Amino acid sequence: MCHIEATQEKAVRAPAGVSKPPRKFAGVVIITTGLPARGKSQLAHSLARRLNWNGESAKVMRVSDYRRKRLEPYASHELFRPDHEANVALRALAQRDAMQDCATWLASGNTVAILDATVVTREQRTEVHDYFSAQLGYRVLFVECVCEDGKTLESNYREILRHSLDYAGMDAAKAAEDLRLKIAHYQKTHQPMDEAEGYPCIRVNTATMEIRACKVNGHVETSVLGYLASVSLKPHTLYFSRHGESEFNVLGKIGGDAVLSARGERYAQALAAKINSMHIPELRVLTSRLRRTIATARGIEAAQEHVAALNELYAGVCEGLSYEEMQEQYPQEFAWRDQDKLRYRYPWGESYVDTMKRVEPVIVDLQQAHNVLVVSHQAILRCIIGYFLDKTPEELPYMEVPLHTIIRISSQGFNYKLEFIKLGIECVNTTRLKPQNCSASRTADDALITVPAHYDIPDPWRNPGTGPTLVQQH
Amino acid sequence: MCHIEATQEKAVRAPAGVSKPPRKFAGVVIITTGLPARGKSQLAHSLARRLNWNGESAKVMRVSDYRRKRLEPYASHELFRPDHEANVALRALAQRDAMQDCATWLASGNTVAILDATVVTREQRTEVHDYFSAQLGYRVLFVECVCEDGKTLESNYREILRHSLDYAGMDAAKAAEDLRLKIAHYQKTHQPMDEAEGYPCIRVNTATMEIRACKVNGHVETSVLGYLASVSLKPHTLYFSRHGESEFNVLGKIGGDAVLSARGERYAQALAAKINSMHIPELRVLTSRLRRTIATARGIEAAQEHVAALNELYAGVCEGLSYEEMQEQYPQEFAWRDQDKLRYRYPWGESYVDTMKRVEPVIVDLQQAHNVLVVSHQAILRCIIGYFLDKTPEELPYMEVPLHTIIRISSQGFNYKLEFIKLGIECVNTTRLKPQNCSASRTADDALITVPAHYDIPDPWRNPGTGPTLVQQH
Repeated sequence: MCHIEATQEKAVRAPAGVSKPPRKFAGVVIITTGLPARGKSQLAHSLARRLNWNGESAKVMRVSDYRRKRLEPYASHELFRPDHEANVALRALAQRDAMQDCATWLASGNTVAILDATVVTREQRTEVHDYFSAQLGYRVLFVECVCEDGKTLESNYREILRHSLDYAGMDAAKAAEDLRLKIAHYQKTHQPMDEAEGYPCIRVNTATMEIRACKVNGHVETSVLGYLASVSLKPHTLYFSRHGESEFNVLGKIGGDAVLSARGERYAQALAAKINSMHIPELRVLTSRLRRTIATARGIEAAQEHVAALNELYAGVCEGLSYEEMQEQYPQEFAWRDQDKLRYRYPWGESYVDTMKRVEPVIVDLQQAHNVLVVSHQAILRCIIGYFLDKTPEELPYMEVPLHTIIRISSQGFNYKLEFIKLGIECVNTTRLKPQNCSASRTADDALITVPAHYDIPDPWRNPGTGPTLVQQH
Repeated sequence: MCHIEATQEKAVRAPAGVSKPPRKFAGVVIITTGLPARGKSQLAHSLARRLNWNGESAKVMRVSDYRRKRLEPYASHELFRPDHEANVALRALAQRDAMQDCATWLASGNTVAILDATVVTREQRTEVHDYFSAQLGYRVLFVECVCEDGKTLESNYREILRHSLDYAGMDAAKAAEDLRLKIAHYQKTHQPMDEAEGYPCIRVNTATMEIRACKVNGHVETSVLGYLASVSLKPHTLYFSRHGESEFNVLGKIGGDAVLSARGERYAQALAAKINSMHIPELRVLTSRLRRTIATARGIEAAQEHVAALNELYAGVCEGLSYEEMQEQYPQEFAWRDQDKLRYRYPWGESYVDTMKRVEPVIVDLQQAHNVLVVSHQAILRCIIGYFLDKTPEELPYMEVPLHTIIRISSQGFNYKLEFIKLGIECVNTTRLKPQNCSASRTADDALITVPAHYDIPDPWRNPGTGPTLVQQH
């Protein structure tokens, strides 16, 4: 997990006399197959998100996007008639475009290309497989999406009609009929995958989430098998909040297990009042196991679970220090952190990359959950919310997750909508921006220039009798 | 990945009026089910190994071990007759013992208990499920092993007759007949798992490795699904070698991309001669992408792949330094590393924990591979070989993996046999033992006391004209 980078493996060298070499560590092409509205695109995007989270470099090439590049605007289902030669050819070209971009993606040193396609016939699957496997030497995995459940299909249709670019602006009834006819065209030629085809394949029933895997091996492919089981295609909404302002926040200290400040307690009350008034059905609350999140969630009327994976990024030897103290005691570490906040790990502590891994069990839970409120900490919520918003790892450490604010995300197809609900309780600002000078030889002033204002308890031995004073760097 | 520790989650607190709380982050019990000789124990141990590698704390409780504790020595298949009341009761007690140890394991803060059982009837499965789920509130996952393939079964029988404690010392023909009758007893009551039972279940066909999953969710369970796909039950042998002595080894420097020393080149020749003379069928060679491993494997007649995941642990700012230089330039880091070599990460570099994660794709490949030679580096081979030998993470950084030695591991049931084949080419010792004094305030002499002897190139500006000199700390 240290290097978040593409690792292109060197081509296999086979001495004379040794036949076709294995390419166990070559790139992987994942190809979705199945009728429209079976959840392929959503699975593809969920997979890419999770693979990227785990250090792969994955990208979805969606054939319908390439088709729209070649032909816009979308006219009607006629485009999908299997007996219309020109349209069949056009769609084949779009698929070729997507396949070529998959190949370019892997040739550039990335590790996983996801071809979001229908490839509903055996012939199409053989063609795609042979292009990537026999011609280019990549490993291929098919993910077949099946669904015969009327209720699930109805829900999928609604999501497509709401979010597909093809139907933007089209009359609702006309769009629904068009989608029906489009699927009917595909059904005429559809051949479900068959073991006899002999390709590595995972079949997902997207209604029951029953999963079947044949000939699946390799690290990426077996990971994908697990990832597929933790996807849900149902629309869902999640809520997040940082703990209320803590006594350490007030003093500008990081880490620790401080209790809430008076203002933090007021936020806890406001949060409970707000959430309780929303009457969210079957709400579940997850908090960290630190006092400030448990206290923040205390008044919320819902089942609560305290999860260590939600504890704040652990700052090791710097736990409980202010930035000023960190600069004084560990100037080298402080500079290193500024140079690469994502990968920097506190001595005996964690990095953002470490916490990305640590919160994964919670992410897996949230992927399949609806109406959960997570009360946690700045770094941890950056990771979790960043996951659903497809942030790159580099963006995570600088995401805005303000105190005293409810954050709501709601699925929209395979994307998420983000909303901030500020509760209007005053608090300190805890966000230290990246300073311009990150060199280890910088002055203390340069290192501390972006530290937000906070209070300071003066050293009682040096200044007996004085109270807290406001520290502001400039 | 920072904390390799059990994280026991706090019990769920449900306010009045809220019904049975969810326990999404409680422990998980994995229960194997199926007839004898279907590969259950091997799957169970492979799962435990992989889960522990990934930061869980998993343990297998094998019902047959508990049965042997209650009744030794094993007499005959009569023990398994379903119509022999006393024997049925005895086996039920053994299963209870194992279940109680599972419960104790989880109650002690561990995360996964694996009950290696047969539970071939619905009634048995219901009883086990209810004990862990309804009574104790843990999450339960069944792993059903099925196999109807005669050839695979014959191979499984042979492995059982060779390694099972029940058959140690028994006449071979008698033992084979006894195993056959034991399985026949189980077949009389066996009810394969049925979706109608409604439990989360993964069914593995251990002949085809076809996998089917129903109602599997949660982070551990979905990970297990992926892990199961990357297990192989076939006996296999793997070979390992560090690169030949490098010019950096001679100088006592760490990391870098040095070429082989003259003695290292001699080892490369000897290695190729030895491996080629062994005529290992379908041998594959994996090396890192550093010059010293590629050069070491150069003469071996087999397909070779150069894999970045096999590169040496990256020492960041300390790459290319000798231990003496590290002590001089980064005494604090040097002491921290000695305090916890497993978790210590070099600034901008890696820790052992990082490399454990990084080599996992290679481990997945090797788990299913036979006759592969891995030519890599000290830290990396410690991790990979340690994985198969069930070393704890804490043991890895101090495992002995000497230069100029072929290491062979061969599966023996679910364990591995380890052999060293020394090729008798002289080389420096590169293993620095943990010094007694690991304090950051220690003297340089104390810090360097365990540095093995190596040559030193004197600073040509200070001592012009002198050649390399042997440095020995004491």
